[in-house]
Amino acid sequence: MRDASHTIQTRGRRYLALAGWVLLCFAAASLGGIFMPGEWYSSLKKPSWNPPGWVFGPVWTALYTMMAVSAWLVWKRGGFAAQSRSLSFFLIQLALNAAWTPLFFGLHWTGVAFVEIVLLWLAIAATLGVFYPVSRVAAWLLAPYLAWVSFATILNYTLWRLNS
Amino acid sequence: MRDASHTIQTRGRRYLALAGWVLLCFAAASLGGIFMPGEWYSSLKKPSWNPPGWVFGPVWTALYTMMAVSAWLVWKRGGFAAQSRSLSFFLIQLALNAAWTPLFFGLHWTGVAFVEIVLLWLAIAATLGVFYPVSRVAAWLLAPYLAWVSFATILNYTLWRLNS
Repeated sequence: MRDASHTIQTRGRRYLALAGWVLLCFAAASLGGIFMPGEWYSSLKKPSWNPPGWVFGPVWTALYTMMAVSAWLVWKRGGFAAQSRSLSFFLIQLALNAAWTPLFFGLHWTGVAFVEIVLLWLAIAATLGVFYPVSRVAAWLLAPYLAWVSFATILNYTLWRLNS
Repeated sequence: MRDASHTIQTRGRRYLALAGWVLLCFAAASLGGIFMPGEWYSSLKKPSWNPPGWVFGPVWTALYTMMAVSAWLVWKRGGFAAQSRSLSFFLIQLALNAAWTPLFFGLHWTGVAFVEIVLLWLAIAATLGVFYPVSRVAAWLLAPYLAWVSFATILNYTLWRLNS
């Protein structure tokens, strides 16, 4: 009986932790929803390959969900005590991700945002690298995110150069 | 009747927004709670004026609460549409605040954390500056935070130099 109740508690805590990671990632994501729709963005000169606006919402929703599951999979291997290094890299990339939207869409600092997204790209790549030995699935869950941010970096650079 | 229901809806939305700001600030704050207690920190050489560990929890709780109210007071003046610039500064400082804990307590990168906290200090000072013309109360609510981060910057520098 004791073992059974212990298992249930552990499972409960695990799902609570998953909810925590989802909440944290969507706190960062919420900034995108706030700033995204704007006249300023519509008025920017864009390259021919700029994706239509409706693409960004579903893409980012999928990426933030995978991100949350990825962090949770690493967290499951011993929590913060055992994974402090890996999860630190994750949280730093999440903070850089959260800061990009106010820089680009809030302040229209497209040049500063470009420097920042390069740092974000490096932080995601580092996170993927430290996650890989802990959980291959967790690392692979970050691969589409890294690919999208690679594209977003080129897009940010192009929008900065076209409009300055 | 219409006016009354409109007022109630507006008030409802306002309190919902306050809850949103509190949630967002405490999402950043939660990282402090995760990383704070550690053997590594206990083992650091500390200056004589280093505050005892129990001080940080209550101080940060008060500071994050004031921060949330401050942002909400600015948000109330026209929402994100009207205050995108001021609130962008706020969100950037919040992201820098969130990133400091994993840098210092997670990765033990005390030198990088020092550079980062200097950027945080500048971002808070800029936020206070852009908040002031919108709401003096909002600006003053950030003053204790700026004072504490000034102290934390000196403490971070000292801990970095003493232990490297």
